[in-house]
Amino acid sequence: MVPSRPSTPPPELNWSGWGDPSVSTVLPQRVHALLREALGVRAESPRPSSPADFTLPEPRLGADAFAAVVGFQNVRSDDEARLRHALGRSTPDLLRLRRLDASGAPDLIVLPGSHEEVLAVLRLCSERRIAVVPFGGGTSVVGGLEAAGAHYEGVIALDVRRMNALLELDEVSRLAVVEPGLRGPEAEALLGERGYTIGHFPQSFEYATLGGFAATRSSGQASAGYGGFDELLMAMTVATPVGTLRLGRAPRSAAGPDLRQLILGSEGTLGVVTSLTVRVRPVPQRRAYDGWRFPSFTEGLLALRLLAQDGAVPTVLRLSDEAETALNLAWPGELGEGGGGALAIAGYEGAADEVAARRGRATLVFEQEGAVGEPEAGEAWERDRYRAPYLRDALLDAGALVETLETAAFWSAVPSVHETVSSALRDSLTAQGTPAVVLCHVSHVYPAGASLYFTVGCAQAEDPVAQLRAAKAAASEAIMGCGGTITHHHGIGTDHRDWLPQEVGPLGVGVLRAVKAELDPEWILNPGILLPPPSGTPPP
Amino acid sequence: MVPSRPSTPPPELNWSGWGDPSVSTVLPQRVHALLREALGVRAESPRPSSPADFTLPEPRLGADAFAAVVGFQNVRSDDEARLRHALGRSTPDLLRLRRLDASGAPDLIVLPGSHEEVLAVLRLCSERRIAVVPFGGGTSVVGGLEAAGAHYEGVIALDVRRMNALLELDEVSRLAVVEPGLRGPEAEALLGERGYTIGHFPQSFEYATLGGFAATRSSGQASAGYGGFDELLMAMTVATPVGTLRLGRAPRSAAGPDLRQLILGSEGTLGVVTSLTVRVRPVPQRRAYDGWRFPSFTEGLLALRLLAQDGAVPTVLRLSDEAETALNLAWPGELGEGGGGALAIAGYEGAADEVAARRGRATLVFEQEGAVGEPEAGEAWERDRYRAPYLRDALLDAGALVETLETAAFWSAVPSVHETVSSALRDSLTAQGTPAVVLCHVSHVYPAGASLYFTVGCAQAEDPVAQLRAAKAAASEAIMGCGGTITHHHGIGTDHRDWLPQEVGPLGVGVLRAVKAELDPEWILNPGILLPPPSGTPPP
Repeated sequence: MVPSRPSTPPPELNWSGWGDPSVSTVLPQRVHALLREALGVRAESPRPSSPADFTLPEPRLGADAFAAVVGFQNVRSDDEARLRHALGRSTPDLLRLRRLDASGAPDLIVLPGSHEEVLAVLRLCSERRIAVVPFGGGTSVVGGLEAAGAHYEGVIALDVRRMNALLELDEVSRLAVVEPGLRGPEAEALLGERGYTIGHFPQSFEYATLGGFAATRSSGQASAGYGGFDELLMAMTVATPVGTLRLGRAPRSAAGPDLRQLILGSEGTLGVVTSLTVRVRPVPQRRAYDGWRFPSFTEGLLALRLLAQDGAVPTVLRLSDEAETALNLAWPGELGEGGGGALAIAGYEGAADEVAARRGRATLVFEQEGAVGEPEAGEAWERDRYRAPYLRDALLDAGALVETLETAAFWSAVPSVHETVSSALRDSLTAQGTPAVVLCHVSHVYPAGASLYFTVGCAQAEDPVAQLRAAKAAASEAIMGCGGTITHHHGIGTDHRDWLPQEVGPLGVGVLRAVKAELDPEWILNPGILLPPPSGTPPP
Repeated sequence: MVPSRPSTPPPELNWSGWGDPSVSTVLPQRVHALLREALGVRAESPRPSSPADFTLPEPRLGADAFAAVVGFQNVRSDDEARLRHALGRSTPDLLRLRRLDASGAPDLIVLPGSHEEVLAVLRLCSERRIAVVPFGGGTSVVGGLEAAGAHYEGVIALDVRRMNALLELDEVSRLAVVEPGLRGPEAEALLGERGYTIGHFPQSFEYATLGGFAATRSSGQASAGYGGFDELLMAMTVATPVGTLRLGRAPRSAAGPDLRQLILGSEGTLGVVTSLTVRVRPVPQRRAYDGWRFPSFTEGLLALRLLAQDGAVPTVLRLSDEAETALNLAWPGELGEGGGGALAIAGYEGAADEVAARRGRATLVFEQEGAVGEPEAGEAWERDRYRAPYLRDALLDAGALVETLETAAFWSAVPSVHETVSSALRDSLTAQGTPAVVLCHVSHVYPAGASLYFTVGCAQAEDPVAQLRAAKAAASEAIMGCGGTITHHHGIGTDHRDWLPQEVGPLGVGVLRAVKAELDPEWILNPGILLPPPSGTPPP
């Protein structure tokens, strides 16, 4: 087929917050009152009004050498472009923007148009000791976009937005070959015209890119049905400073270790994914989203486990704990009126008869474990599934501190992880003088375990970045202490880096360093992301 | 729970061939006649009669240093033990046994009883530059047990048979923690008493070990239903020459690359797996195996693809091509009377209602693509599923050359792989003066593709090892040329090592070398397996 591309450029991510700049969530007065009364929120924390308010460090790099590779029109050095590539969209990032801190802005933005151009840029940066931040949608929530560039000659953001083609569609194998800069909705639109979907819908879907999904080992809201991105990716081409890596010749192989799984989750530290072969499925004939209210989180957990283990798992399956159910964060107008028990969402997508069969079997399990149907909750979740980050912006503006963090564990450990992490967050913030509300939901299920996604809210203290760092550290220690993983789908970035040695052990970190030294001997790719940065000179 | 172990030692693998020494397949006269007339088989190729016929090289190592670690009773240096650890069970291995060639026998067999003892043995071998061959069931069919020991002070086989406990069973998470030396049937028996199964049944099942399943990235006959061993393994402990690696804290994580997938398939070159946490499921209430005859392989392939892609996939799904169907190799008494078309096997295992539903939906697909039910074929396959290697022994004894090889590819490439590899085998053997029969079946299916398993038979030439090597090389080139993987589940060993650079590229090989240098700096683990051996001194 002839490669096809989106006909219009995608919307730019709001430079000072999440999403579409024309969308804003206005908090009802009752929410403002609740924030004051329940959490002690005092001062507002307004966003900066214009990119011109920022003073960026002087750029350390000129455009010429890069322009010789990608063309002058594809190198940007203006302050607004630098600001837009300076930070991700974690709460600490958004708080720093409110303090006009974009100190980690890259010196230049380079926009290669092909695998060969990426290779040439990486060679150039290796020769000149310039750090490279591979940049997709810019939606990292773990500090994955701010490389430690101090010991380098400069830092570029390597923005893959020009590499946005659907290159091939193999309808027999149900595989699409795509470039890394395609955003989620763009890929779905190009494939949807031909009757297919990837089925990967993380909360960042509207702005994140396919390359980013691979680099961060992303997991979508419909992972129970479609699998994580690691299960969707069948083959890949990777540009590294020392050449090209092509991986994946079959759906499965026993030809040694699976090196695809080494690039997935490497967060731009080993190479730049320049093409991806991903599984596609026919656009579902039928979509149905149900809500179910359990008497308690405990009963809901049991039902989710049975569904995940006994083969009638919905495409989307989530369960809020009692606190999250009661607070009803999704509908700020009815805050605190979510009712009792634990609310679950079950979504089914597929052929009509298959959806009917699976929904029927799952419904038996929900009812058997005491859940009562609440159809409107399912519909509301589907409608509002990408809205939460907008609400976070509004709450931050109002002076509240809101952050999310997540983990996964085997089923037998899930209750203790839920309990221990919730307590750690509450205790840390209370000790800092800002009593917190902690909410949690199961966001992804597997036969052997599940992920837990926590949302924490309190008043912003004087230094909210430090306040949050302390709470996050307490939560992270709690996660490691009760056997969970430091991240189920957000990734390591810089925020979780200190816990990677506990996660994979010092030998595991050694393996990652050895692989990096092999593929990126000058250590230019995302220094400080995933692994500690080299100090001064690159490691041997 | 208290660790539990098998109450009796497992049967020893026949030292001169496959399986239970008391089982032998007697070929009917009509088969001998067919071998003579159709393939030109002339001289018989009898097995050696006694281990005493072999003259092994003088052992280069004394037992004392190892005995200090594991106890004198757990070090063996007698010739029979050395012979039993000298070779795997590939056709070249069996042919070499017929020539009394066990030149690759290890100097000593060391049997550690714990993770700590494995660590200590690896440290000792690193200090003294002794090569280590991790040894499970000894069933490798790709030369995975014969390390390149010439440049070392000696070679030990590190046999994990004493590490054979079921350590834990977590019924909530449906996870079992097992030691690596448990054989397939032993693990199933220990778990079966408690109502569970792993569901991993490769053809080597009766003799292979759990540790071997992990090290070789094994795939079972029921992989469509239970997943490959890479999908069953959730966590692992690995002893390496530089220490312990513990991987896997949750069913899924985004904490960087998935390092479990680096140990899976590492074939003992990076470390020794000392415990495995694997998924278990309830023993199926119901098992049903059907046979289906398609008008042709092409129609059968279409049906298998639809089943794999549309969600009603059987637990076991296989399809023989016309040649394999007609030859009817499974029933030597009726050789050549298998009839026309292409025979498929579909097995279903699970809860009774779930099996009924899935079988009903799959039956519609079989019938829609023109297949006719043949129930006795399904039952026969289930009964005889582990028999093929016994038949190979008998055919080799009779003077025929029989070997199997396998690959996998994306669906759109499957027909060309089938055609090209079949031709390459036939052409190579015909050019060597030994016209061949080539059979093939699909052994594993995935939404994006399938594996193809080839069986080739001809007369043994004067040097059958060289004859086979040439045919295998032709087949391997054909596989790589049309986009398949060099191995779907047999592994790399030494036999496929020369194709690994084509499979993962020189950079991929470089990554594997870098990881090995990190975990095994003295390069003692399985030198020459998976990767080329170091020449003389270990690499930097």
